[in-house]
Amino acid sequence: MIIVMEHKAAEQDIQAVMDKLSQAGFQLHLSQGVSRTIIGVIGANTKERVTAMAVEAMPGVEKVVPILHPFKLAGRDFKPEPTQVQVGDLSIGGKGVHVMAGPCAVECEEQLMQVARLVKEAGATILRGGAYKPRTSPYSFQGLGEEGLKLLAQAREATGLKIVTEVTAVEHLPLVIEYADILQVGARNMQNFHLLKEIGKTGKPVLLKRGPCATFEEWILAAEYIMAEGNFNVIF
Amino acid sequence: MIIVMEHKAAEQDIQAVMDKLSQAGFQLHLSQGVSRTIIGVIGANTKERVTAMAVEAMPGVEKVVPILHPFKLAGRDFKPEPTQVQVGDLSIGGKGVHVMAGPCAVECEEQLMQVARLVKEAGATILRGGAYKPRTSPYSFQGLGEEGLKLLAQAREATGLKIVTEVTAVEHLPLVIEYADILQVGARNMQNFHLLKEIGKTGKPVLLKRGPCATFEEWILAAEYIMAEGNFNVIF
Amino acid sequence: MIIVMEHKAAEQDIQAVMDKLSQAGFQLHLSQGVSRTIIGVIGANTKERVTAMAVEAMPGVEKVVPILHPFKLAGRDFKPEPTQVQVGDLSIGGKGVHVMAGPCAVECEEQLMQVARLVKEAGATILRGGAYKPRTSPYSFQGLGEEGLKLLAQAREATGLKIVTEVTAVEHLPLVIEYADILQVGARNMQNFHLLKEIGKTGKPVLLKRGPCATFEEWILAAEYIMAEGNFNVIF
Amino acid sequence: MIIVMEHKAAEQDIQAVMDKLSQAGFQLHLSQGVSRTIIGVIGANTKERVTAMAVEAMPGVEKVVPILHPFKLAGRDFKPEPTQVQVGDLSIGGKGVHVMAGPCAVECEEQLMQVARLVKEAGATILRGGAYKPRTSPYSFQGLGEEGLKLLAQAREATGLKIVTEVTAVEHLPLVIEYADILQVGARNMQNFHLLKEIGKTGKPVLLKRGPCATFEEWILAAEYIMAEGNFNVIF
Repeated sequence: MIIVMEHKAAEQDIQAVMDKLSQAGFQLHLSQGVSRTIIGVIGANTKERVTAMAVEAMPGVEKVVPILHPFKLAGRDFKPEPTQVQVGDLSIGGKGVHVMAGPCAVECEEQLMQVARLVKEAGATILRGGAYKPRTSPYSFQGLGEEGLKLLAQAREATGLKIVTEVTAVEHLPLVIEYADILQVGARNMQNFHLLKEIGKTGKPVLLKRGPCATFEEWILAAEYIMAEGNFNVIF
Repeated sequence: MIIVMEHKAAEQDIQAVMDKLSQAGFQLHLSQGVSRTIIGVIGANTKERVTAMAVEAMPGVEKVVPILHPFKLAGRDFKPEPTQVQVGDLSIGGKGVHVMAGPCAVECEEQLMQVARLVKEAGATILRGGAYKPRTSPYSFQGLGEEGLKLLAQAREATGLKIVTEVTAVEHLPLVIEYADILQVGARNMQNFHLLKEIGKTGKPVLLKRGPCATFEEWILAAEYIMAEGNFNVIF
Repeated sequence: MIIVMEHKAAEQDIQAVMDKLSQAGFQLHLSQGVSRTIIGVIGANTKERVTAMAVEAMPGVEKVVPILHPFKLAGRDFKPEPTQVQVGDLSIGGKGVHVMAGPCAVECEEQLMQVARLVKEAGATILRGGAYKPRTSPYSFQGLGEEGLKLLAQAREATGLKIVTEVTAVEHLPLVIEYADILQVGARNMQNFHLLKEIGKTGKPVLLKRGPCATFEEWILAAEYIMAEGNFNVIF
Repeated sequence: MIIVMEHKAAEQDIQAVMDKLSQAGFQLHLSQGVSRTIIGVIGANTKERVTAMAVEAMPGVEKVVPILHPFKLAGRDFKPEPTQVQVGDLSIGGKGVHVMAGPCAVECEEQLMQVARLVKEAGATILRGGAYKPRTSPYSFQGLGEEGLKLLAQAREATGLKIVTEVTAVEHLPLVIEYADILQVGARNMQNFHLLKEIGKTGKPVLLKRGPCATFEEWILAAEYIMAEGNFNVIF
C-alpha cells in the first residue's frame, strides 16, 4: 500500500499520517520525491486495515494506491501454475482445446438430439443448451425447466458429450446440479453474488461469463466469490 | 407487426409468407413500395405468434419490425395516467418531490441516527441505508444484515422518515419486507429476474435502479417482470 | 416509411397526417390494427422528405419507423455481390485470408526490418505500422512522421509486403498516400467526418476501424461518408 | 514512479532493475514488503524516461505504477487556483453561473432570432447554435456553414449574447474564429488531436465536450493537448 501525499503537503500532515500508521503497527518507508512525498506501508492485510482507518480522508493525502491485486485465491500469487478443471475424463485448461456448442435454448427432443449429434460430429466435447433462460422480457420463452434438463441428460447418454447449462436462481441449483456437468453463470448474473456464493459451496465446475460492461477485475472478483466458498473449478 | 421483404424479393417468397400468416388467422395488408414490399400483420398477440412461426427466417424476409412496445403493463397504453406510488402517507410520483437520502451502508447506531436526523432536518422524507450490500469484492464489508434493518426501523421510529433499503437475494426478502417501506433493487440486480418476480409477488413499493449499460427498454422490461406478478408500485 | 399513430389517436389527427402526406405526393396505405393505426408511406426519398415535414411532431403520431437502411452505397441493395478491394495484386474480401501484422509504431529501421521479415515468414501479406500515432497524452511518442513512412516503404521494398498505415489528419493525407498501399482510419477518428470525406476523394483502399462504443450502423455510415465521395474501397 | 516486483521475484532480477535505474541517475528507495518488493523511483521526468527504458518488460517486474497524474498543465499542481475563462465581459468559472442555450443547428434567420430572444429573456448569457454539424449520416443536414456563422453574429448584435459554436475541422477554424466567442469541440472530436492542437494555437476560449465512452483522464488529457500549445482557456 502506497500513500501519495499532495504536492506541497504540510510537514505536519505527513507526520500525522505516519503517526497513525505506525501506531497501528505498520512498518513505513518514507520517500520524498521531486514533487510528492510518498509513504510505503508494510504489514498484514494492509488494504482492509488502511481502508478502515480512513487514511484517504486525512488532510494532505492525495490518494492511496494498492500494490497488491484485490483478489487472492484467483491470482497467480496463490496458485502459480495454470488451472485445470476436471470434468469427468476431460481436463479443461490443459493442452487440448474443448469446444462447447449447442442451441441457445433446449426446445424439444428432436431439436436437441439433432443438434447434439451434429455438435459431436463436428468435434465438440461439451453440449451447451439452456433449460432456464434469463430473458429481457417476461413474455419471452423462459426455458423448459426440468424437462429441458432431462433432455440434456438424454443427449449426453446418446452422444457421450458433457453438458453445460445455465443456472439463473439459487432455488434451481439443487436440480441443475443433478443434471449438469458444468454450471453456467450468464453475463447478467455475473454479479449476482448470492448465486455465486451458493455455487461456491457445490464444488461443481462453473463457466463464469463476463457481465455487460464488467471490467476484468470485476470478473475475477466474481470468481473470487465462488472460490472463497471453496470451489476452485472456475472456467472463464 | 410489419414484415419487410428484401429488395427484389421473389414473388413466390412474398406469397409464401402471406399464405403462412393468413392460414394462421392474421389479417394482412400488402404494400408494394418503390424498393421494398412490406406486409402489415394484424391480430392478437402478433409478436409472440409471428416470432414462434419463425417468419423472420423465411426466404426473402429482410426483417420483422414490431409496431407495439415490448412491454404492456408498464406502458401508457395500459395505464394512461401518471403512476403514483403510495408509501404510508407519502405519495411518490405526484406533485411533491420526495428526496431519499442516507448512508451507503448502515454501519452503527450512532452513525445512522446522526445521519437520519440531518437528513430529516434537510427536508428529506425517506431514509436510505443498506443492510445488505452487493460488493464487487467478497472481502469488502457486506452489511450488518438484520442488525442493520433493526437500526433502520429505530431511525424511522425516532424521525418519522420512511425507509428504503436494498434487497440482494430472494432468501432475504421475507426479512427485509418486515422492516422496509420501499425495497431497493440495485443496479447489478436489475436483471436478476428471479428476484424481480419474487418482489412482484409482495405488492411492496420498489425502487428499481437502472443496471450498468442497460437500455431504457431493458429497464422498463425489468419493471414489467415485477408488474406481471401483480405489483404495480414500481419507482424508477 | 411507416407512421405509427398513438393508441386511441383521434380520427381527425389520423386524417391530418394523411392529408399532409398525400398533398406532398406520397402514396399511402392505411392499416387499422387492433390497438394502433399505422400508415405506410410510399414514394421517393421518403425518409428525408417525411423528416423535413416534421410529421413525427404532429398530434397523435407515436413514432415514425424507417423501413430502409439509412445507408445506401454501403448496403447490399446498391451492390448485392460481396466487395473485393484490390491492393496491387492482392484481392481483399475474396476467398483467401490476408493477415496484416506489424508493430504499433514504427520506431527505427532495425525494429521495422526485423518485424517485417518475421511477419513475412509467418505468412502475412500486409505490414502494419504507425508513422503518425494518435495518443491519449500529448507527451507520448507521436510517431516518426515522414521518416516512418520512408522506413515502411523500405520494408515493402525488402519483403514485398504491402503497407497499411494510419492517417490521423487531413493535412498529412497527401504525404501518407504517396507511401501507403492502404490507409488506416483509427478507432478514434471513425467519426472525424472531414477526414473521411477527404479520404473518399482519393480512391485509395481504406481500413476503417470501429470507434469506441460505435454501433454497427454508425460504422457503416462512416463508410458511407467515404463512399459518397466516390471511394468504394472500404475494408471493415 | 513505483516498480512493483513479482511475488517471489529473484534477488538478481531486483538487482538488475535497480542497477539499470541507478545508472540512469534515478534515486531509488527499496522497500521489501510481506509479499512484494517495491522500488520507488525519484527523478525528473520519471514517467517518460522509465517508459523509454522498458523497465516494465524486465524479468521479475509485475507492474509500473505512476504516482503523478499523466497531465501537467491541466492539473492543480501546476495551477492550484480555480480557472476562470474570460469571454468578453463574462467570466466563466467564477461565482456566477452562465447558461449557454440555443438550437442544435442554425436553420434560418427567423428560427435563430426567435430562439435568441427567448434564450436571452430566460436569462442565458451565451447563445449556442451549430453552423457546422457533425452528422452520423452524410445525408443529414450538415449545417449552413458561413451563412450560419453570419446569422449567429447577427443574433449576437441584436441581443448582446455571446456565441458558442462547434468547429469540426481544422480547415474551418480560421472562419469560425472570426465569428465565435467560444469554440465548441464536440463529443466525437474530443480525440481529434490535430484539431485540438490547432485550437491550442488560437488562444480562443474552448468548450470541450466529453467523448463517447471517454474516461475523465482521457478528457483531461484532451484539454492538455490544447493547453500544451499555449491555450489555457478550456471549459469542460
